[in-house]
Amino acid sequence: MNDMIRKEYAMSKEKTAPSRRQFLTSAAALGAGAVVATAAKAADPDPLITEVQDWATGLGDGVDATPYGLPIKFEDDVIRRNVEWLTADTISSINFTPIHALDGTITPAGCAFERHHSGAIELAKDDYRLMINGLVDKPLVFTYDDLERFPRENHVYFCECAANTGMEWAGAQLNGAQFTHGMIHNMEYSGVPLRTLLAEAGLDAAGDFKDKWVYVEGADASSNGRSIPMEKAMDDVLVAFKANGEALRKEHGYPARLVVPGWEGNMWVKWLRRIEVMDAPVQSREETSKYTDTLADGTSRKWTWVMDAKSVVTSPSPQAPIKHGHGPVVITGMAWSGHGKIARVDVSKDGGMTWETARLANPGDDKALVRFYLDTAWEGEEWLLQSRAIDETGYVQPTKAQLRAVRGLNSIYHNNCIQTWHVKANGEAENVEVS
Amino acid sequence: MNDMIRKEYAMSKEKTAPSRRQFLTSAAALGAGAVVATAAKAADPDPLITEVQDWATGLGDGVDATPYGLPIKFEDDVIRRNVEWLTADTISSINFTPIHALDGTITPAGCAFERHHSGAIELAKDDYRLMINGLVDKPLVFTYDDLERFPRENHVYFCECAANTGMEWAGAQLNGAQFTHGMIHNMEYSGVPLRTLLAEAGLDAAGDFKDKWVYVEGADASSNGRSIPMEKAMDDVLVAFKANGEALRKEHGYPARLVVPGWEGNMWVKWLRRIEVMDAPVQSREETSKYTDTLADGTSRKWTWVMDAKSVVTSPSPQAPIKHGHGPVVITGMAWSGHGKIARVDVSKDGGMTWETARLANPGDDKALVRFYLDTAWEGEEWLLQSRAIDETGYVQPTKAQLRAVRGLNSIYHNNCIQTWHVKANGEAENVEVS
Repeated sequence: MNDMIRKEYAMSKEKTAPSRRQFLTSAAALGAGAVVATAAKAADPDPLITEVQDWATGLGDGVDATPYGLPIKFEDDVIRRNVEWLTADTISSINFTPIHALDGTITPAGCAFERHHSGAIELAKDDYRLMINGLVDKPLVFTYDDLERFPRENHVYFCECAANTGMEWAGAQLNGAQFTHGMIHNMEYSGVPLRTLLAEAGLDAAGDFKDKWVYVEGADASSNGRSIPMEKAMDDVLVAFKANGEALRKEHGYPARLVVPGWEGNMWVKWLRRIEVMDAPVQSREETSKYTDTLADGTSRKWTWVMDAKSVVTSPSPQAPIKHGHGPVVITGMAWSGHGKIARVDVSKDGGMTWETARLANPGDDKALVRFYLDTAWEGEEWLLQSRAIDETGYVQPTKAQLRAVRGLNSIYHNNCIQTWHVKANGEAENVEVS
Repeated sequence: MNDMIRKEYAMSKEKTAPSRRQFLTSAAALGAGAVVATAAKAADPDPLITEVQDWATGLGDGVDATPYGLPIKFEDDVIRRNVEWLTADTISSINFTPIHALDGTITPAGCAFERHHSGAIELAKDDYRLMINGLVDKPLVFTYDDLERFPRENHVYFCECAANTGMEWAGAQLNGAQFTHGMIHNMEYSGVPLRTLLAEAGLDAAGDFKDKWVYVEGADASSNGRSIPMEKAMDDVLVAFKANGEALRKEHGYPARLVVPGWEGNMWVKWLRRIEVMDAPVQSREETSKYTDTLADGTSRKWTWVMDAKSVVTSPSPQAPIKHGHGPVVITGMAWSGHGKIARVDVSKDGGMTWETARLANPGDDKALVRFYLDTAWEGEEWLLQSRAIDETGYVQPTKAQLRAVRGLNSIYHNNCIQTWHVKANGEAENVEVS
């Protein structure tokens, strides 16, 4: 410790007014150098520096306080939220990840979005069974313990609901990145490749999979079921039992769910109970009436499984306004593509007229979220803030106008258009649309 | 759905005994193919397959059930635990990550170990100040909002307490990987490089840092403080405010902590309040009386900051016995090195006589946990199970005998020796030592 600080410590113990006054003078000099030329929020002299605080003298919580911890109370608004008017009941509903308040790429399980078709069920490991049947040599039933005996893999993948941003087709609707883009999470999954389990059932890994499908089905009352082409099933699909290192949460399919990297979230069947090998797709409700893209002429495009490249600025955004005044500001957001890695993200402040290349925090994993930053400054001017993702295939995230030109206005699903936030002179942001 | 399954659905709705009996016969054929030649745990025919279960008909929880979620009740033993006899009180104590029950590499914040010197304090963002003083051109005081205005980085790093495995110096003590090796976590940190903040205070990034140090200090009553050589401070140290995407937990230093990649956990100062640039180390309590390595001759080795390469088998282990009978089994564990990436992990079943190369789940990040697997079989023989990490510098994790030969028996800290689990004929495992 240098002399000044040593003196302060001594003084604060003595609690003598003259000594403290003396220190205040020094601290004022410190405060004068306030960082990044912002309007100082701290009073000057600042009692939070010059006075000894309760937390610096009293004892805090011991290690038995929270055997399994939760966020601190000051963060209790960083939670999953639903939109009441969006669905009639919460059982078959959706809530949204608070992406406006997160950074990095990993989504903590506690605030990762949920989508249920008949509610989150409670299924114990001992009661868990997974059947593989249909066109296989040996129909099999696996217990949970069985699954843990096969070679495992670990991968970070994003899971995005096909309906993410679905309310925005008709116009700017929901005022917050959590609600426009929060049906996504990004977790590290541990599980057994589906191809391993199919091989155990006698499926020939070197076989001809043309026109072969698997039908995957959940154990909940909705029997959520989807057809997956065998090429994908034998590629990177996992039967996963852990996310971010720990057992899946109840609401994410405990004890085992399907992970279908890069493909729409509805196919990531939770509480997975059955996999049937077939020579045709089932044409289930969830792949005909739902999760298809109704075009302008009223016909529906189906088998649109892959989530195209997409991005969104998470801060500033309606729930994360600029509060710190003019000067340096970090624009941040996330980008992802079901086709592979993100190659580049651009940011526009003028509604897409001009673009700056954002900084990617890391090269990013295949079919996983990547975090981008634009380290810039704001002097109170109005912004029409956008981000645009380009993936390794060269695909460029489209504008809403481009998407509508191809798809019309009848869609709900697969809206990966460029999002615009109007940042106003007071630092607040609003969901808007630019032509 | 194939015919058999369709029939079963119809039958289960009719609930007519003859129909069900008919299905049971088919299901028995399915069950006969039971996977991986294990002693089948499921009854055959198995009502969990042949009967319609409550969770397949009733409604589950809606999305409002848990705005911020916790693990399912069946996993309520996967928690941080302390060891009562280890310390007199929980305020200045330690708890341990349940590594025996985790997989992958990310540690969920909720079960990531804690070490407090005077308890976990509650410090709101608005009350947070970070001072940089000492040998700088412009002493500065940052508010929390200020920190968010600087360019950020994201990295996954392990944080290991120097005392991890410390109880094992004298012999095999604690019967569980959670207790022998659980003072470690691995999270994705988001924060501002310390060099950026030092530059803001006028430190010349191109300067000569020989004999320059920073002293970093926490805001809690312990004033936990450590000296860090300037080369490290200007290299990869972060002032972090998020872990795994969300705000730091209270017990991990909310709202901001230091991240000192690869170096002992005590230097990762929580509730960081002050950074002083000095021309000598402080020789604080935590770097003289504590966190030094007392050798056989009674002298203490200091400045042993880097955590050497280390690994441990997490399953099977005393808290994670083999329960599923003979046949295929996955041996898994984790490895890490403060010097960089892990190059290889070997596993021995015979106490180090012979070794097999384990499979790394991923190439792994610099100074981060890597997950390893050995996909093998067990027929009830006794194992002396070990793992041995080799990092990219060529350093090989030592045996306990090798470590004792150099360091004697007086140490508490920096025990990175090879751990042995004795796996018995009944599948249970015990902490033992091999000579």
